[in-house]
Amino acid sequence: MSRDLKVGDKASVSKIFTDEDVLDFSNLSLDKNPIHLDQSFAEKSIFGKKIAHGMLAASLFSGLLGMKLPGEGSIYLAQSLSFIAPIYIGDKVTATVEVIKIRPDKPIVTLRTFCVNSEGLVVVEGEAVVKVA
Amino acid sequence: MSRDLKVGDKASVSKIFTDEDVLDFSNLSLDKNPIHLDQSFAEKSIFGKKIAHGMLAASLFSGLLGMKLPGEGSIYLAQSLSFIAPIYIGDKVTATVEVIKIRPDKPIVTLRTFCVNSEGLVVVEGEAVVKVA
Repeated sequence: MSRDLKVGDKASVSKIFTDEDVLDFSNLSLDKNPIHLDQSFAEKSIFGKKIAHGMLAASLFSGLLGMKLPGEGSIYLAQSLSFIAPIYIGDKVTATVEVIKIRPDKPIVTLRTFCVNSEGLVVVEGEAVVKVA
Repeated sequence: MSRDLKVGDKASVSKIFTDEDVLDFSNLSLDKNPIHLDQSFAEKSIFGKKIAHGMLAASLFSGLLGMKLPGEGSIYLAQSLSFIAPIYIGDKVTATVEVIKIRPDKPIVTLRTFCVNSEGLVVVEGEAVVKVA
């Protein structure tokens, strides 16, 4: 599979995270921070409204890497993440992974990974390292 | 809040990720890789059985940071993750965050973050950077 990959290859997916998604993720992650769940708390915070978990948006990278690029059989080795701007509940997030480095000696690929909101602002970015089948 | 923090402070949480949790996370992350969902596929893989998503285990850090240490009002700035060993569905995962650096000039704290399985093996590790209230 790595033979077919080249630097610059990209894959993207979009998702709107709803209140229900955020509640589900709160239960999975045990992260019940009121900034994600409590409207009146969120209104008084610096964000002004409820935000989705940054790690929830970042989870889209897991799906892209495992299912699209490099795709099935990939083994996720590492991920770095910077949470740059809030992700408001109900906003559309588009996650992209892009091949930036392919090791010549081993089937290990580095990808730039980032999420943008509906205004095109980068909200999460980092890099993933994946072993390909 | 940052005045009360000191290097070495720790918080932990444990969770068993069930098939239902993994299915929920698959729907949230759009990561429907059969290694997480399909018993017969997983049996033929190098893992030998179904595994939880590494990002699902890592999501426990989000809860610890936002709710326990540093706690409410924290703003998650960055997270690095290495996925070291598979997390089998049904195994107990214990996530820990530990303060390793407190900036003297700004309310920014770095924590070591890691998950161990029920045998005490580190399965995920990395560092988080958090702004404290």
